[in-house]
Amino acid sequence: MENKIKEALAEIQRGSFEIIDIESIEKLLKNYYEKGENFYVKAGFDPTAPDLHLGHTVLLQKLSVFQKFGGIVQFLIGDFTASIGDPTGKSETRKVLSKQQVLDNAQSYKNQVFKILDETKTEVVFNSNWLNDLGAAGLINLASNLTVARMLERDDFSKRYASNTPIAVSEFTYPLLQGYDSVFLKSDIELGGTDQKFNLLMGRTLQKAYNIGKQQAVLMMPILEGLDGVQKMSKSLNNYIGVTDEANNMFGKVLSISDELMWRFYELLSSKSLKEVKELHEGVQKGTIHPKAVKDSLAIELVDRYHGEGAGLKAQEEFKKVFAKKDIPSDIAEFELKADTWICQALVDTNLVSSTSQARRDIKAGAVKINQEKIDDDKLNLSKGEYILQKGKKSFAKIVII
Amino acid sequence: MENKIKEALAEIQRGSFEIIDIESIEKLLKNYYEKGENFYVKAGFDPTAPDLHLGHTVLLQKLSVFQKFGGIVQFLIGDFTASIGDPTGKSETRKVLSKQQVLDNAQSYKNQVFKILDETKTEVVFNSNWLNDLGAAGLINLASNLTVARMLERDDFSKRYASNTPIAVSEFTYPLLQGYDSVFLKSDIELGGTDQKFNLLMGRTLQKAYNIGKQQAVLMMPILEGLDGVQKMSKSLNNYIGVTDEANNMFGKVLSISDELMWRFYELLSSKSLKEVKELHEGVQKGTIHPKAVKDSLAIELVDRYHGEGAGLKAQEEFKKVFAKKDIPSDIAEFELKADTWICQALVDTNLVSSTSQARRDIKAGAVKINQEKIDDDKLNLSKGEYILQKGKKSFAKIVII
Repeated sequence: MENKIKEALAEIQRGSFEIIDIESIEKLLKNYYEKGENFYVKAGFDPTAPDLHLGHTVLLQKLSVFQKFGGIVQFLIGDFTASIGDPTGKSETRKVLSKQQVLDNAQSYKNQVFKILDETKTEVVFNSNWLNDLGAAGLINLASNLTVARMLERDDFSKRYASNTPIAVSEFTYPLLQGYDSVFLKSDIELGGTDQKFNLLMGRTLQKAYNIGKQQAVLMMPILEGLDGVQKMSKSLNNYIGVTDEANNMFGKVLSISDELMWRFYELLSSKSLKEVKELHEGVQKGTIHPKAVKDSLAIELVDRYHGEGAGLKAQEEFKKVFAKKDIPSDIAEFELKADTWICQALVDTNLVSSTSQARRDIKAGAVKINQEKIDDDKLNLSKGEYILQKGKKSFAKIVII
Repeated sequence: MENKIKEALAEIQRGSFEIIDIESIEKLLKNYYEKGENFYVKAGFDPTAPDLHLGHTVLLQKLSVFQKFGGIVQFLIGDFTASIGDPTGKSETRKVLSKQQVLDNAQSYKNQVFKILDETKTEVVFNSNWLNDLGAAGLINLASNLTVARMLERDDFSKRYASNTPIAVSEFTYPLLQGYDSVFLKSDIELGGTDQKFNLLMGRTLQKAYNIGKQQAVLMMPILEGLDGVQKMSKSLNNYIGVTDEANNMFGKVLSISDELMWRFYELLSSKSLKEVKELHEGVQKGTIHPKAVKDSLAIELVDRYHGEGAGLKAQEEFKKVFAKKDIPSDIAEFELKADTWICQALVDTNLVSSTSQARRDIKAGAVKINQEKIDDDKLNLSKGEYILQKGKKSFAKIVII
């Protein structure tokens, strides 16, 4: 029993950035193991159309860990604020969504997240259900629990206030609403990103103010690095692996990451236990396991997760077939580019050359190959498809034109 | 026409502390005189049980002036916040009121204010009627129109923030709600006290934000001094004339004020025109009118207002009967004291002596009279009734024990 709780706690702490009130989590685990009592783990999600990449799944992965140890996930879709839009008109991302759009997006979420979460241990909830009933009076009551000074302590507010960047009074209500969600849902734990600390703690504050007999623990997960291993994974930086990426593409992308980032992925994304990961690590250090095999194993696990059992091995075979017999390394970086990208721009975007004029010179010099064939047309535009781009003998990139 | 508008404007400006956008008021008057179009003049009142004194009627008097020149008064009872109470729990005055209590209080208001306001040109409205429908979403939208920095410019907020005195976030909503009342009511003018400037201007700001095609003018009235002529009229300072004061009592209190304060009362409370008041003033200066007669006239006007036509003259007769044939001046101050007040305390409370020990010495020395009879018992407690208290030959006070 003792050991089981310890193990669970270690898996919960794994990769986390900060945990507040871990004692509460320990008690919840104890209750689960001793009495079979479940507990509630909340996380909030944007109601806009989800198109998740692995960076988003760090939190989901942690939620799934809780599900193994008695946690019921409260998958909260924050549709209330979407029904208002952004009244200050400053945020382009917060558009007014119709009820139907919210439901459609929720369905899309479910399709993606239930590849990670256990559906039987997940409650999908919409906060408009209780926030619409709150009324102006309820919101004023809510707002009476916090002082203006405390609100201005929030990192981004304090910076904006100090620099005379306008803060709309309405912005003060959002942390309060997020906290009230935890009051209404009686959450035991809330998960969020490192930038969410203030809002996550608001749940604790308001649960105390509303006297619901508990205060949620808070667990913050770090931000996942992208394929480059430096910047955060994001669509706009084009350094991401999307959960809907095609299997072979996903496999290749995982193989392209550095060994260091591979261990980071194991920590934050893999369902392998800490013990298993430790064994892999030790094997590599002793030289009994080749790092390439460990990376293959990670790629297989992730492809299996999003494309079904067996898809990982199939992608591995395909990958071997395409790359093994050519003088092309198997772990080359992959890039998505727009249709009709100019070949010189593509060489720059894939970091093979430093400028389009350099690219032009290299093409003229016969140093550039597409799919292992030399090219001499420096005006070429690339149409839809997948290409292996090569400069000289050692520089490669895979391009996917979508 | 020109002259009529000028006259009306002068009456509107009379005694006012500050007017914002007087050009708008001029246009409204013009419209009224040219086209007979009415306009809306809003003033907000607390929904708690009203027990008005003349200090409160300064605003009502000004509202009644507008009614003469085309104004329809929006007599707003702010019952919405009373339905919430004070969620910070800091204000004892803001208690949660039931719907029935609000209606009862409104009835009591009507009984008192329609002695000043023209009932046919008054709309009594309750802001819970529209603020309940606002909802949390509506309140957030409302709050998006103002920045935190702007809100903290409000005098009391800035002082409290600077001195680290807590401001609840909910307090930010009250000025917004007051402003929204003006949006909903499409008010053309709002009246308030000098301390209300920020909230009154909020109406202008929000009417613009909500695009209702007008921005209310704002008129602020000063605070009326009490019987002492120095401090503001208030119940707790016991220097007030209540609108429900008994006629003779009211008459005597008006006669007790200084000549200077008498002119102030004429400016802020009298329905005599500016021209009439000017004539009185000039008469006194030239010596053709005795100031006592001017004060009598004011007392008669006010008693008539609250006790019906003719009540003033009757009170004057009564007053003469009681005081004229005794060596008691007719303009002595009147005080309300509690039953069983100790005579020495009464002498202190009426400012006839400086301490109870001095009072004791004066009684022993035979210098104190009650109703013109010397007393020697310094342990006397005063029971219910009215008394003339006298110390020496020249110091008098009237006491009413309730």
